[in-house]
Amino acid sequence: MLIERYSLSPIKDIWTLDAQYKRWLEVEIAVIEAFEELNLAPKGTSQNIRQKAKLDVQKILDTEKIVDHDVIAFIKVVTEDMGDEARYFHKGLTSSDVVDTALSLAIKRAEEIILDELTQYIANLKKLAVDHKYTIIVGRTHGVHAEPTSFGLKILGFVAEEERNKERLEKAIDNISQGKLSGAVGNYANIEPKVEEIALKKLNLRPCKVSTQVLPRDLHAEFFSVLAMIGSSIERLAIEIRHLQKTEVLEVEEPFKKEQRGSSAMPHKKNPILCERLTGMSRMLRSYLSSAYENISLWHERDISHSSVERVFIPDATMLTYYMLNKANYLVENLVVHKDRMKENIEKSYNLIYSQRVLLKLVELGVSREEAYKIVQENAMKAWNERRDFKAILLEDNRVKAKLSDKEAFEDIFSPDYYLKNINEIYERFEL
Amino acid sequence: MLIERYSLSPIKDIWTLDAQYKRWLEVEIAVIEAFEELNLAPKGTSQNIRQKAKLDVQKILDTEKIVDHDVIAFIKVVTEDMGDEARYFHKGLTSSDVVDTALSLAIKRAEEIILDELTQYIANLKKLAVDHKYTIIVGRTHGVHAEPTSFGLKILGFVAEEERNKERLEKAIDNISQGKLSGAVGNYANIEPKVEEIALKKLNLRPCKVSTQVLPRDLHAEFFSVLAMIGSSIERLAIEIRHLQKTEVLEVEEPFKKEQRGSSAMPHKKNPILCERLTGMSRMLRSYLSSAYENISLWHERDISHSSVERVFIPDATMLTYYMLNKANYLVENLVVHKDRMKENIEKSYNLIYSQRVLLKLVELGVSREEAYKIVQENAMKAWNERRDFKAILLEDNRVKAKLSDKEAFEDIFSPDYYLKNINEIYERFEL
Amino acid sequence: MLIERYSLSPIKDIWTLDAQYKRWLEVEIAVIEAFEELNLAPKGTSQNIRQKAKLDVQKILDTEKIVDHDVIAFIKVVTEDMGDEARYFHKGLTSSDVVDTALSLAIKRAEEIILDELTQYIANLKKLAVDHKYTIIVGRTHGVHAEPTSFGLKILGFVAEEERNKERLEKAIDNISQGKLSGAVGNYANIEPKVEEIALKKLNLRPCKVSTQVLPRDLHAEFFSVLAMIGSSIERLAIEIRHLQKTEVLEVEEPFKKEQRGSSAMPHKKNPILCERLTGMSRMLRSYLSSAYENISLWHERDISHSSVERVFIPDATMLTYYMLNKANYLVENLVVHKDRMKENIEKSYNLIYSQRVLLKLVELGVSREEAYKIVQENAMKAWNERRDFKAILLEDNRVKAKLSDKEAFEDIFSPDYYLKNINEIYERFEL
Amino acid sequence: MLIERYSLSPIKDIWTLDAQYKRWLEVEIAVIEAFEELNLAPKGTSQNIRQKAKLDVQKILDTEKIVDHDVIAFIKVVTEDMGDEARYFHKGLTSSDVVDTALSLAIKRAEEIILDELTQYIANLKKLAVDHKYTIIVGRTHGVHAEPTSFGLKILGFVAEEERNKERLEKAIDNISQGKLSGAVGNYANIEPKVEEIALKKLNLRPCKVSTQVLPRDLHAEFFSVLAMIGSSIERLAIEIRHLQKTEVLEVEEPFKKEQRGSSAMPHKKNPILCERLTGMSRMLRSYLSSAYENISLWHERDISHSSVERVFIPDATMLTYYMLNKANYLVENLVVHKDRMKENIEKSYNLIYSQRVLLKLVELGVSREEAYKIVQENAMKAWNERRDFKAILLEDNRVKAKLSDKEAFEDIFSPDYYLKNINEIYERFEL
Repeated sequence: MLIERYSLSPIKDIWTLDAQYKRWLEVEIAVIEAFEELNLAPKGTSQNIRQKAKLDVQKILDTEKIVDHDVIAFIKVVTEDMGDEARYFHKGLTSSDVVDTALSLAIKRAEEIILDELTQYIANLKKLAVDHKYTIIVGRTHGVHAEPTSFGLKILGFVAEEERNKERLEKAIDNISQGKLSGAVGNYANIEPKVEEIALKKLNLRPCKVSTQVLPRDLHAEFFSVLAMIGSSIERLAIEIRHLQKTEVLEVEEPFKKEQRGSSAMPHKKNPILCERLTGMSRMLRSYLSSAYENISLWHERDISHSSVERVFIPDATMLTYYMLNKANYLVENLVVHKDRMKENIEKSYNLIYSQRVLLKLVELGVSREEAYKIVQENAMKAWNERRDFKAILLEDNRVKAKLSDKEAFEDIFSPDYYLKNINEIYERFEL
Repeated sequence: MLIERYSLSPIKDIWTLDAQYKRWLEVEIAVIEAFEELNLAPKGTSQNIRQKAKLDVQKILDTEKIVDHDVIAFIKVVTEDMGDEARYFHKGLTSSDVVDTALSLAIKRAEEIILDELTQYIANLKKLAVDHKYTIIVGRTHGVHAEPTSFGLKILGFVAEEERNKERLEKAIDNISQGKLSGAVGNYANIEPKVEEIALKKLNLRPCKVSTQVLPRDLHAEFFSVLAMIGSSIERLAIEIRHLQKTEVLEVEEPFKKEQRGSSAMPHKKNPILCERLTGMSRMLRSYLSSAYENISLWHERDISHSSVERVFIPDATMLTYYMLNKANYLVENLVVHKDRMKENIEKSYNLIYSQRVLLKLVELGVSREEAYKIVQENAMKAWNERRDFKAILLEDNRVKAKLSDKEAFEDIFSPDYYLKNINEIYERFEL
Repeated sequence: MLIERYSLSPIKDIWTLDAQYKRWLEVEIAVIEAFEELNLAPKGTSQNIRQKAKLDVQKILDTEKIVDHDVIAFIKVVTEDMGDEARYFHKGLTSSDVVDTALSLAIKRAEEIILDELTQYIANLKKLAVDHKYTIIVGRTHGVHAEPTSFGLKILGFVAEEERNKERLEKAIDNISQGKLSGAVGNYANIEPKVEEIALKKLNLRPCKVSTQVLPRDLHAEFFSVLAMIGSSIERLAIEIRHLQKTEVLEVEEPFKKEQRGSSAMPHKKNPILCERLTGMSRMLRSYLSSAYENISLWHERDISHSSVERVFIPDATMLTYYMLNKANYLVENLVVHKDRMKENIEKSYNLIYSQRVLLKLVELGVSREEAYKIVQENAMKAWNERRDFKAILLEDNRVKAKLSDKEAFEDIFSPDYYLKNINEIYERFEL
Repeated sequence: MLIERYSLSPIKDIWTLDAQYKRWLEVEIAVIEAFEELNLAPKGTSQNIRQKAKLDVQKILDTEKIVDHDVIAFIKVVTEDMGDEARYFHKGLTSSDVVDTALSLAIKRAEEIILDELTQYIANLKKLAVDHKYTIIVGRTHGVHAEPTSFGLKILGFVAEEERNKERLEKAIDNISQGKLSGAVGNYANIEPKVEEIALKKLNLRPCKVSTQVLPRDLHAEFFSVLAMIGSSIERLAIEIRHLQKTEVLEVEEPFKKEQRGSSAMPHKKNPILCERLTGMSRMLRSYLSSAYENISLWHERDISHSSVERVFIPDATMLTYYMLNKANYLVENLVVHKDRMKENIEKSYNLIYSQRVLLKLVELGVSREEAYKIVQENAMKAWNERRDFKAILLEDNRVKAKLSDKEAFEDIFSPDYYLKNINEIYERFEL
């Protein structure tokens, strides 16, 4: 189990031993209900079994130490006081019928919780995107000022990305909604496909088309790959904010609580520690991928090498993803946005961000693209080196002055608003 | 580019520099066609440009060495003899509009080729599954004999897995069918969304809902994760065959060509080298995942750190996947299946594979599950240790004899055919 | 914290919150002791502080919830009743001076425990190698019978591998034996290098030559890479045993306890579940690598993205490695070796394993290598196909008969003992 | 082979097919020389063979297509015109004796080239560190201004890191300086250990203590892990520079060539594309790790699954590492350092970077640490919020004024030089 620090309810409650045994029992009883429906067990058996089943976690653990097999230990303890009806319990099943079907239930439940949080995250991002639809910020490529854009549009990119992730997650939920009650090697030797069909339906699962002793592990690898994708998208936001919170930039800040302290040595510090934490967690979600994919190639009708990996990584991955989404929600809801600093910073690059417009204007006025590029680049480099206004420098260049003699048209080039003219059209692609 | 040894046509032809520049030109011209449609350029411009465009690979490379920018080098060379119409070339675009849109075209094409090969692979697997629907083989779990099953069913599991992969690949193709002509920071500052819409349609792509300077990299990560999934599924088959070809098992063999030699030292060797090679290649496809996912978190409106990774790993990954599928097809089409050995091997475990049936029969006859398990396990261990027939040993046990006195019913337990009774029902889940 | 199931003492005790705070206190006090030695604090200060320091885990956690900073919470609680001497506590330090130095202490301790278990593992492997120095087993390459060899030699290969790992681990221990008390950005602004030197010496650490706010993370990545290496070596043994325990081979078995049960459905099963578990765990150790290496590139004088990764993965990795070594020791000490089956299996390939000797003999007798290879391969394939004795088939070939007419010399070729003639020389390379 | 773009001499010359076959021949001939020394072949045999050996790359490739085995194809072609002496060629060897020993030669050579470039890199870093020993720059933690430090010290941290990497690489070179001529399963069945000893000595290698058919793959995994480490360290520098080149910071710039162009759209752009490229390449080197470690667990005396991985990843990894070091050298030698901007930026945080010194001074003057922290933090937050000078704000606080009444002492706190007082002592830990 993930360390307490990062384990939040409700997702952590899925992964207690108690919850696990309850799911196992749920599966076993669903099978007996199917038996009843098919007249393979007397009416009432399942109800009696449900009443007499003894779920004593500690005793199961103690028994496992003797028999070295967790499901057998579970059956032993659960059926202890069951009397004759115990004969229907686990009948025709192999351990993995129970374990793997129950694991699907758990993963599905975890994914649904994650889906809810992701849906909330998208809603929060949308709100932020709408609020800042026309908040001007400099667009940066390679870390260097490029051209003005809107802070809202930046955020809208995350909306689009998370909507794709949502679709991926929904597909993963659909894919994990499979169980298997097909016996020791997947051929229904001692249990009828009909039993599987009925029992799984009760559990809101469907039968896997072909299973071995276990469900095929590509389903689980897919689940991990979607979580890593969600993690990476949150990391992208976290890194964006970390950049924007750098002292020289300071356009946004993650929330800093009233009593919070940033450093034991330096009382002035307000650090984006939450974003940094999310960055690290995304690494962890990525880390799980190699194991998840290696788990696919099990030997023959199964080997159990996937089990230790899944015992640790499945709960941890779901809890980390949930934690990340939960904190990302807090972050987006409480993000401090400094519009004034965005405006100030845009002026830090000597109006160079308008270089493309000057280039295009010159081309429009008949200068060849090659020549225009050369003129603009030369003047731009001068502005960088001398740290002077690009506009002023341009006007000192006769090649420019000759072409851009219309004062108003020239001034018009250097306006950030120009860059927002198509923003609305992008926004209209979304339900906001 | 992947080493020659593993690079097959047609997929390798996608990744030549020549093909890349052609795609770039295709994108640039699509934009000019859109200009024409929208009366932003005179009719005939695109046709003239197409005729005058000069695609001189070596000259582009030489120019790149000077300007240190591949797209600018490309534009310089291509427009060299274009005359005045060059002003429409690359107008309002940023390099990544061209590069990234063209990359989508390339990946899509590669994925389509892979899809075809995958479809063929599924067809081959289906044929093998049908041919061996009732070929009895021992099911193995943990590498140990479990219960009899059908060799065809084993293969049918791969069919199901690859059908899921096919669906994933189709989704990835759909997701990569996006381009972007949204300019330097993705806000359509110097190009209208309408131009993008028309131009991309001509390229059979659709506009990405929000792009930055580049397309969001979750699309590419998804592509890698699907290839790694396909690789892992082939690896699972390769490992299955490697196991079945072990000297003591020898139930199947990968094809061994007439002139082939297995070892420079040991002339008797027939090694499953193809399957081993596929195993290694799957590792490589998995390896790419960590980079692919790290590429998602680009800085601000883009940084170019993803580029070096993609230049190497995207071509290599597609070529490896194609190679794997191509060889997997050869393998499945030419697999040598030794039914006789399957039958022999099933007898190597002293009839212990019927232990569950004995257990269930005892329970049916009124023995408690716990007690029955104990009886069967004790006799089973005796059979293992003494290497004697489980049937004979059971008959020496009075607890068993008392219950299983009906000779015919007793004999009836030890029949492999019993295990195939539901095979047909599984097959009916597929179009075969 | 790793799930209870895989967490063993003594290594898990390192990673409790209580143990962590104790280490922090240890570091803080070492600094004060250094102050005393350098007359920067009155004699007796450290002793007083040690007595008055209050380590209340719950209270620290509660305080952390308010200040959002674990070290500040720790200092607040620990110094609460300290009175005036609290002014020396944490003086001139930054949080990471304490946290990172204490982490080195923890990792070093964990590595030492792992080293002890690894040393024991090597001893156990050596014993097994010696016991089976002359136990003949067929050597297998590509899963196919190659030539006879000794089971002990197989094991000796693991000895050599683990001795290399031991050397790597010792180097990693040496590398992690570094602390840092160099302040907020690593330039000793408010603490003298001399204080660091004295304090770290007390902790059996040495100063890192250059630190930032934290120790450089290549040290930690190295630690992870050594653990993954140890894991992979154990996995190699686990896979070897899983292969040798396959029903058709059954040359060795992992220990099966008296009350153990292999399957809930099939009472006859004895599965190598321990080896399979170790295989999965090795995947996990490999998984950690990508995060560990990503952690190296921290921003500027540090960002804290590594912290969440390390909080989870460092304890888990050490506990998993220890668990693996602990179980590997149990496995090697109790391995069931079936010499008789090894002998039987060697005969399952129709004497083909002697093909190289036939080849070399023919070459020795004047046949060209090319021709000899052809002759031997043809006859070998015949033996495979007809499943007949290679010796008999060779004698039916006139090309062979002509050359190998000496009956005794011919018979002499087919002896497994020949292959052990240089075993002793290999063993002599080791202290056994 | 890596794409041309990233493949530099001399390292790429190691990996041509021609060079590979030459190494194979070198190994084969070393064995025959050993035969001669041991009187197992007539004097002069090796010399004759060397003269008659035919290295026709294309013919070997064509032959491989028939026999499906590269070493057999090589032997066939090389010995074609060799006459009777061909009988000594490859005698008693298995293919992997040649391939793996030759691979060690290749890796060793590659590592030595990398070592030279790394040594140069360390020298360049040292020069930069010395040049800027006292260049003041603000230290940044969490991306936020922390305390002043020296730009040279920043660089010295990379020196220390790369010196550790150098040591790791030297160890890896030593570890890969092993060959194996121990035959098909590693037991010297048809070749004497003495032959191996002599032949390997001629190749400047030593015998591996225990080999199977191949060298143990932990040696190769170690090699990959060291390259990934070197890559990650360069990435750390690349990320540092990318940060320092951000428009708002602009304290350093990577070299920008005279004719270089930064963007096809925006002529003003000077982007740190080299650093970004290095960042991506580090991802690639990390990616190889999972395959490299998976390659360790080969089956029995070897399976060949590692081979496809190594054919692609070993050359690519060495070429990438070399490329990275080569470019890192260019970068460090030509780095543009803006001392003036470093000085300017330090003033951008309202003198808050001196907060720790104020805190310590208050404590020194008798304020409790808790209280002092609170006072300083309150004033610091005020400075952040009001964007006013911290000094001025402090003087408005009576609690501060009361304590810090000595004007000179107060002013003295706010001096960046204070932070460099121990720099020299750190530098003295190095040979500079």
